Amino acid sequence: MTLSRRTMLGSTAALTASTLLSQANARAADEKTTVNFALVGLGSLSTNQIAPALQKTKHAKLAGIVTGTPEKEKIWADKYSIKPENIYNYENFDKIAANDNIDVVYIVLPNGMHKEFTVRGANAGKHVLCEKPMANSSADCREMIAACKQNNRKLAVGYRCQFEPHHLYCRETVQSGKYGPLHAIEAGFGFKIGDPNQWRLKADLAGGGALMDVGIYALQACRFLTGEEPVAVTAQETKMNPKKFAEVDETITWTMTMPSGVNCYCSTSYAFNGINRFNAYGQSGWLGLDPAYSYKGIKGESKDGPIQFDQIDQFAAEMDAFAKCILEDRQSSVSGEEGLRDLLAIEAIYESIQSGKRTQVQKA
Amino acid sequence: MTLSRRTMLGSTAALTASTLLSQANARAADEKTTVNFALVGLGSLSTNQIAPALQKTKHAKLAGIVTGTPEKEKIWADKYSIKPENIYNYENFDKIAANDNIDVVYIVLPNGMHKEFTVRGANAGKHVLCEKPMANSSADCREMIAACKQNNRKLAVGYRCQFEPHHLYCRETVQSGKYGPLHAIEAGFGFKIGDPNQWRLKADLAGGGALMDVGIYALQACRFLTGEEPVAVTAQETKMNPKKFAEVDETITWTMTMPSGVNCYCSTSYAFNGINRFNAYGQSGWLGLDPAYSYKGIKGESKDGPIQFDQIDQFAAEMDAFAKCILEDRQSSVSGEEGLRDLLAIEAIYESIQSGKRTQVQKA
Repeated sequence: MTLSRRTMLGSTAALTASTLLSQANARAADEKTTVNFALVGLGSLSTNQIAPALQKTKHAKLAGIVTGTPEKEKIWADKYSIKPENIYNYENFDKIAANDNIDVVYIVLPNGMHKEFTVRGANAGKHVLCEKPMANSSADCREMIAACKQNNRKLAVGYRCQFEPHHLYCRETVQSGKYGPLHAIEAGFGFKIGDPNQWRLKADLAGGGALMDVGIYALQACRFLTGEEPVAVTAQETKMNPKKFAEVDETITWTMTMPSGVNCYCSTSYAFNGINRFNAYGQSGWLGLDPAYSYKGIKGESKDGPIQFDQIDQFAAEMDAFAKCILEDRQSSVSGEEGLRDLLAIEAIYESIQSGKRTQVQKA
Repeated sequence: MTLSRRTMLGSTAALTASTLLSQANARAADEKTTVNFALVGLGSLSTNQIAPALQKTKHAKLAGIVTGTPEKEKIWADKYSIKPENIYNYENFDKIAANDNIDVVYIVLPNGMHKEFTVRGANAGKHVLCEKPMANSSADCREMIAACKQNNRKLAVGYRCQFEPHHLYCRETVQSGKYGPLHAIEAGFGFKIGDPNQWRLKADLAGGGALMDVGIYALQACRFLTGEEPVAVTAQETKMNPKKFAEVDETITWTMTMPSGVNCYCSTSYAFNGINRFNAYGQSGWLGLDPAYSYKGIKGESKDGPIQFDQIDQFAAEMDAFAKCILEDRQSSVSGEEGLRDLLAIEAIYESIQSGKRTQVQKA
């Protein structure tokens, strides 16, 4: 291979320019080590988990709020020293486009509002972190992904467990083959829901019941542990309090098969406490977490003894991880596609309940 | 109403005769406190569990054997002092009809032989205790029930767990409503099967794989705890070693709903160890056993702490219970109908796997 002098010179010049540019970028990245978050929706999750977590983050900073409740503005502004220019309501939210002090909007609204505020946030030029479930439907997820793509913004879903060390250990151990090929997973998450008037029991706001809200953790565990996408599901729903659960599902059990042959059996419920776990069974060993999905106190057992790591603030880890993705221009491991895949499986479960048939999970 | 003197006298005479007869029967029953068992099939279960258990029973005595392996005759005769006239093979088994020293035949053969030997035993005038699963099909179960009925003989299935104190405590606690209405049960039983040439892997002898052999324990637990018969099932099967499991199922997960709304999710497998349990969840509490189905070492936990009872010999309890049913002329709580109901649910699970549809469980 021969290169002309012109080509050599040209390419050297290009290389030099490119090197200089990337060095400049690197300096800029070095300078910027923190990403500014605005919380959209100041309910109990934001109040009790996410805002406190933002006091522990290294790369994420609570800089703004978006709330539909005017009286919360002063309380939060005082408590977290939020500047007046970083406070929005649901009507003037789009003006956030002009605010360079906000990099990310974290959507912590009822599920039915996720799509609207993700799209508006992306159109305003903000990166978006959205609570799970990502949206009420896979179609909404696709719109959200498209909006972020069009605006060249990053999108992530609040799958905090994927940053939790017990969960990470379990995935690593399963995928290392330490316990041989995986054969089965049992997973479930439920709790006895209180207030009958809350948004979680309204179909338009919640998109569904226990399955959408907490069953998604069991589904996530199966997908996260295996790194596989489910092939088909079967499911049954029971409702012992049809008045309270008039609009959403109360208790669902389902089976779910993976391409490798892993056979999962799962449950979710709003009717009782006690199931908050997964167990994975390989040909030569097993492991599991119980409780698996709590904010704190994750505990594990395996064939070889207890699984023990320090408890972390999962929300802080999740937000720091997304902040680093932004700082380093990488796609999040809990991207919009990840949220979409859960919704596709959830839709297959609901469809199976309706049709009484084994239902293929659609591809993302 | 007037009665003629003749009628009065006649009826008094009949009453007197009947009273005398029943008193005589009562005396005979008082005298007879032991029921003589012949074990049909001297494989590992008979050798390692049932014969030793018969050394501990109060009302059941090992009096005879039926074996297809001539060399076992002397070994067993020597070990258990079995009289030559109480030893049969599969060909001359029917001659047991003339042997008043045998009251019960306990069928411990491969599943596919249960029907034949139950029917032959009943036709020979013997009560029948049959290992689980009762038969390869519900049709076979019905034939077995009919044969015992026609011969006025009792029929029971070897559901040893139904006599185990931890299981009994769990059923009593669930049904007492202590933990409120029951909402869900998770149950599973499996193990990694060894020898690829054993009868359990042959369809004609085993009738099915893990589901027939050990999944039935999980199914039993759901039925026993609730006292209900399943309405409908959904199920999926996976097979990661299609060569070894060419004829029978390897791993199955299923969902199962009860008339009250209890929603069950279950598993069974021949591919791995680790699942041997049930957990039942009420509105205000939960309980479970793990291991639940082992011969020894049953352990339980509940919302209120450990569930602890003395370990018993479950086979001895099962045989003593059947012996007492015979001595007291009562139907067994683990009757042929109980075995039939499990087969109906198992058939629904297999049908659901084949059809991909939620499948109603047929009524007994």
